[in-house]
Amino acid sequence: MALGGGHGLAASLAAWRRLTEDLTAVVTVADDGGSSGRIRREMPVLPPGDLRMALAALAGEEGSAPQVAQLLQHRFGGSGVLAGHPVGNLMLTGLTEMHGGDSVRALGVLEQLLGARGRVLPMAEVPLDLVATVASTDPDDPQETRRIRGQVAIASTPGRVRDIRVSPADPPVPEPVLTAIARADVVCLGPGSWYTSVLPHLLVPRLRAALAASPARVVVVLNLEPQPGETDGFSPQEHLAVLQAHLGGVSLHTVIADAAAVVDRRGLLSAVQGCGAELVLAPVAASDGTPQHDPARLAAALASVVGAR
Amino acid sequence: MALGGGHGLAASLAAWRRLTEDLTAVVTVADDGGSSGRIRREMPVLPPGDLRMALAALAGEEGSAPQVAQLLQHRFGGSGVLAGHPVGNLMLTGLTEMHGGDSVRALGVLEQLLGARGRVLPMAEVPLDLVATVASTDPDDPQETRRIRGQVAIASTPGRVRDIRVSPADPPVPEPVLTAIARADVVCLGPGSWYTSVLPHLLVPRLRAALAASPARVVVVLNLEPQPGETDGFSPQEHLAVLQAHLGGVSLHTVIADAAAVVDRRGLLSAVQGCGAELVLAPVAASDGTPQHDPARLAAALASVVGAR
Repeated sequence: MALGGGHGLAASLAAWRRLTEDLTAVVTVADDGGSSGRIRREMPVLPPGDLRMALAALAGEEGSAPQVAQLLQHRFGGSGVLAGHPVGNLMLTGLTEMHGGDSVRALGVLEQLLGARGRVLPMAEVPLDLVATVASTDPDDPQETRRIRGQVAIASTPGRVRDIRVSPADPPVPEPVLTAIARADVVCLGPGSWYTSVLPHLLVPRLRAALAASPARVVVVLNLEPQPGETDGFSPQEHLAVLQAHLGGVSLHTVIADAAAVVDRRGLLSAVQGCGAELVLAPVAASDGTPQHDPARLAAALASVVGAR
Repeated sequence: MALGGGHGLAASLAAWRRLTEDLTAVVTVADDGGSSGRIRREMPVLPPGDLRMALAALAGEEGSAPQVAQLLQHRFGGSGVLAGHPVGNLMLTGLTEMHGGDSVRALGVLEQLLGARGRVLPMAEVPLDLVATVASTDPDDPQETRRIRGQVAIASTPGRVRDIRVSPADPPVPEPVLTAIARADVVCLGPGSWYTSVLPHLLVPRLRAALAASPARVVVVLNLEPQPGETDGFSPQEHLAVLQAHLGGVSLHTVIADAAAVVDRRGLLSAVQGCGAELVLAPVAASDGTPQHDPARLAAALASVVGAR
């Protein structure tokens, strides 16, 4: 089972699908930007973008599946009101409306059309807002911190995030998510936007409680580099420290980092051990130097961890 | 092969699919109203609405096909910029963009997802505008007639249509349409909005020439009642007279009318014979009294005509 959102979750799923077909993606529903933001301002549905990306990452290769995956990801051109919407966001929104707001059922229809290698579930039954306390970077600002609401606003506000929570504070979690967590062998957090794709799952009390109670091995895949606006200048151990501060009873078992991306190996090792976890340093980055995980390499690292269980 | 648009074509296809799987729908692309109008004003694609309805009418019953058909037809709710768009219009538009403007290929993808019992083709490769000359109904209007451009404007202008043409005057017709016409056993015109769904095919020179050269039996299914704004007060024989005036070398072989909808049987018979065709009077209307064709009854009437060939 892989938790996350956006491109980070897609990278994780691209690796995990090489190892298993019994795969569940649990996806953040706090995005308020781009097409998802436009849709959630217009209709009472979950922001579809992260869900759509996860679906596309699990698409099969037979029959119409590749065409459907391409259609899901195709963004309308032009300069009108449709421009920029990925068609899949509209398909998922339409299916959800059609099924009386039942996103899980709507996702099931798309999984079928995609011959998906696993399933995609939203981490909450209602759209969430992220609310962050961000340190001021303005020396003339009399306030030390500012409260910022919304994923886009948080990512575009300079200054480090001091604290983050979700609103509503205790949203309902779909039953199939809780069931999947209870019977998971492995739960994978990251890579991805740390505050807006990876942490949100730990901010939802019912999800965090289910993770704390699960017998699953919890694996964290660290990012390859800091993200502007969210984790500027963060070292791998600082990423880990932020995560640790939000674990609330969830145990970490393994932390995977790219060997070349870690400058202070000793510091990271000590931070990982401080979490009670083991560190796996492996070459998981793309070989072309882009700060992206290579699916085959990440799969190899994950396989070694899962096999070592 | 069935020619038309909108609900009329859907009714024809619902009947024809009971008789054959070797079925081609050739669909008008002149709509400029509703969702189709909004889309064609925003993007350089064919108006998708009539194509979508024809696809849905041919949907199969296995696997995901019924869900896909329902999704195609589902209209977004709410009151935002998406409200009222059927999801299928957006899917077809997205697929067409994705395939570099190739509507025929885009339709093929949806046919596959729908397990369609036949294929759907646009009657022209470019969006068309209808241009009509409409008789003035205002006694103070110094002009006897007005030139009205656009399907919506024509349907909402009071007064009888005196003359209708398409713009551009000689649009390109997809090659698969010409091939299908050349090898068709039967070509079926109507039912449907007479000026805006049935006649347009005869206004496209390359389509009309292909129909005139085809060995197919040409069957006309008359409407059950006149349509406000288009054919107010038209008797069945007046419908036929309008059609005849636009045949330009296309032969009619059979005219099917609902027995109960025809008041002046002798007049209609004489008009049909004047076209060199045979008249079939049969109970083809829905039994609940709504002015719609019943698929099973229409299929029975069509079977008798095809069998009589």
